Amino acid sequence: MPLRSMTDHAGAWLRGAGPHSEIVISCRLRLARNLAGYPFVGRATRSQHDDVLSRCRRQVMECEALGRQILWVDLAECPEVDCQLLVERHLISRQHASAGALPRAVAVASDETFSIMVNEEDHLRIQVLRSGAQFDEAFRQVNAIDDALESELEYAFSSKLGYLTACPTNVGTGIRVSVMLHLPALRLTGEIEKVRRAARDMHLAVRGLFGEGSDAHGDLYQISNQTTLGRGEHEILSDFQHTVVPHIIDYEQQARKALVQHRLVQLDDKIWRAWATLTHARVLGTEEVLGLLSHLRLGVNLARIDKVDIRTLNELFLLMQPAHLQKVSGRPMEAAERREARARLIRERLLRPAKPSEGS
Amino acid sequence: MPLRSMTDHAGAWLRGAGPHSEIVISCRLRLARNLAGYPFVGRATRSQHDDVLSRCRRQVMECEALGRQILWVDLAECPEVDCQLLVERHLISRQHASAGALPRAVAVASDETFSIMVNEEDHLRIQVLRSGAQFDEAFRQVNAIDDALESELEYAFSSKLGYLTACPTNVGTGIRVSVMLHLPALRLTGEIEKVRRAARDMHLAVRGLFGEGSDAHGDLYQISNQTTLGRGEHEILSDFQHTVVPHIIDYEQQARKALVQHRLVQLDDKIWRAWATLTHARVLGTEEVLGLLSHLRLGVNLARIDKVDIRTLNELFLLMQPAHLQKVSGRPMEAAERREARARLIRERLLRPAKPSEGS
Repeated sequence: MPLRSMTDHAGAWLRGAGPHSEIVISCRLRLARNLAGYPFVGRATRSQHDDVLSRCRRQVMECEALGRQILWVDLAECPEVDCQLLVERHLISRQHASAGALPRAVAVASDETFSIMVNEEDHLRIQVLRSGAQFDEAFRQVNAIDDALESELEYAFSSKLGYLTACPTNVGTGIRVSVMLHLPALRLTGEIEKVRRAARDMHLAVRGLFGEGSDAHGDLYQISNQTTLGRGEHEILSDFQHTVVPHIIDYEQQARKALVQHRLVQLDDKIWRAWATLTHARVLGTEEVLGLLSHLRLGVNLARIDKVDIRTLNELFLLMQPAHLQKVSGRPMEAAERREARARLIRERLLRPAKPSEGS
Repeated sequence: MPLRSMTDHAGAWLRGAGPHSEIVISCRLRLARNLAGYPFVGRATRSQHDDVLSRCRRQVMECEALGRQILWVDLAECPEVDCQLLVERHLISRQHASAGALPRAVAVASDETFSIMVNEEDHLRIQVLRSGAQFDEAFRQVNAIDDALESELEYAFSSKLGYLTACPTNVGTGIRVSVMLHLPALRLTGEIEKVRRAARDMHLAVRGLFGEGSDAHGDLYQISNQTTLGRGEHEILSDFQHTVVPHIIDYEQQARKALVQHRLVQLDDKIWRAWATLTHARVLGTEEVLGLLSHLRLGVNLARIDKVDIRTLNELFLLMQPAHLQKVSGRPMEAAERREARARLIRERLLRPAKPSEGS
């Protein structure tokens, strides 16, 4: 089972490196594309779905520009736990995981820096993920992938509107830029609501760890542009990269400074309680762990605790999730059993000596 | 300041010794007595209060049968924090602490095995405290004190009703028998409500750590007889000692066995989380500490953790309280400061190497 190998490490985008990685967990660029001559996924017939799927598969798997280390996963035939694993690793959307028998797939780069969903809402959703605020690198890569695919596949395109997409919010460049930010200080000081309001005013979406409708457990917030029509991709990206993200980073850093200056004992209390509980509990649920990892990550970034490195923490955000735990154990586990396995995994990872070469 | 010396240890009654000390923290016998020829405290004049006080003082302090190591504390002139300290050590009642300028006092044995409140609800309230279920020893001692005082003081007594007391529930023998029980398993399994109901049916009072109106934080329950009229003190005590307490002990022990057999992981989770939080937190409130100490005490008694002994835990129940913290620091502290001092004290006590001679 090729997915099994994913379960003992995190993708490259969670390495905890890159610009502002103390706050910017990762950045993501996503392009929505559709093949000319086929209806959108929601209106296509079964044989059209199959057709789109096989054309895309051929192009993706044979395109040398994409590299040779690509895993193709046929989701209609994929066990539920594997679909869930891909969701947990942010390689496919929840919607894509749960579309039942609809012919659909995802192509995943072996280092997980990009994935291409086929027959999600659009025929093609190309996403590039990068650790930290590496927007330029991500932009270069997503364009290279896009160009490589477009060389053989004819995209649905209107000279007036740009790329045509199933949902009007994606029409135009079809680009969505997003960042996953760790904003524990803004949440602790209560200022996160101001950020949410400001983002809304700037037509940005603020979501939780798993996109639309998910809560911001672990103080992890995904911020992304809402519409693409009428704006160039450079403008969208530049606005995001040079205005939006630096502002929020600055705001979070000020909140962190304020905590250190005015509420140090309360801050240390949260950090040490998080460390204590994560290294001693015998039963741990996902939401609780996210909250504790968040406090611990803040503590490491503020140099209030040095017992663990950021890379290990970033990995734990991923590895402690339900599908990951089940893949590691090699069998389905009920929620109660998972809570025990989660506590064991976290204890072991946090208490084992750090590998010096992996330290962030 | 003589009370200062109390703040680095617990009274002998918290030693964690005596029969069933894994469940019975302590037992207490209290006699209510009034002097003949004076109105009850609630109806007496100021000069009558003074009179009662000085007569009792002379008798208590000069009576050789009581021993020479007795501390007399004039409560009307006592700083509030000292009154609070005596409440926290269960040597006086909350009512006695907060009676303002009313002339009143408490006499305390240096090992804190007994105290005599003067001008509380009754002229005299003689209480003996013992670690574990040492009812017989407590009964012998309280009778000896009573006899010694009665040799010089004439008590208000009716041949028909027995000893006369301000509250009709105490008339007769004037005795109140109580135990402080640690019942964490019954609380965790939810069966504590059955115990409460059974106790009510048997005309027993079930109260929290600080008597009437206080909550059972730390899973500590005080159970006592409600009325004394019409029953001999031997009958009351025997009923309590040989029926009520053994039944509850048995019930708690069954609940503990059930936890170990059927919910061991959840039990260990609570125990290790308690240890982790108590040894790592930087800010700790009283209620949270009581709950955590309770789980830790259960863990030690069930041999699920061996990092601390019962005596240290029993002491912490006492020493982490507000007045104790302030007496130790030698100055008044706001609640926020106390929470830090509490966390520091607990960390230090739990992490310091145990003195072998003090192990329980």
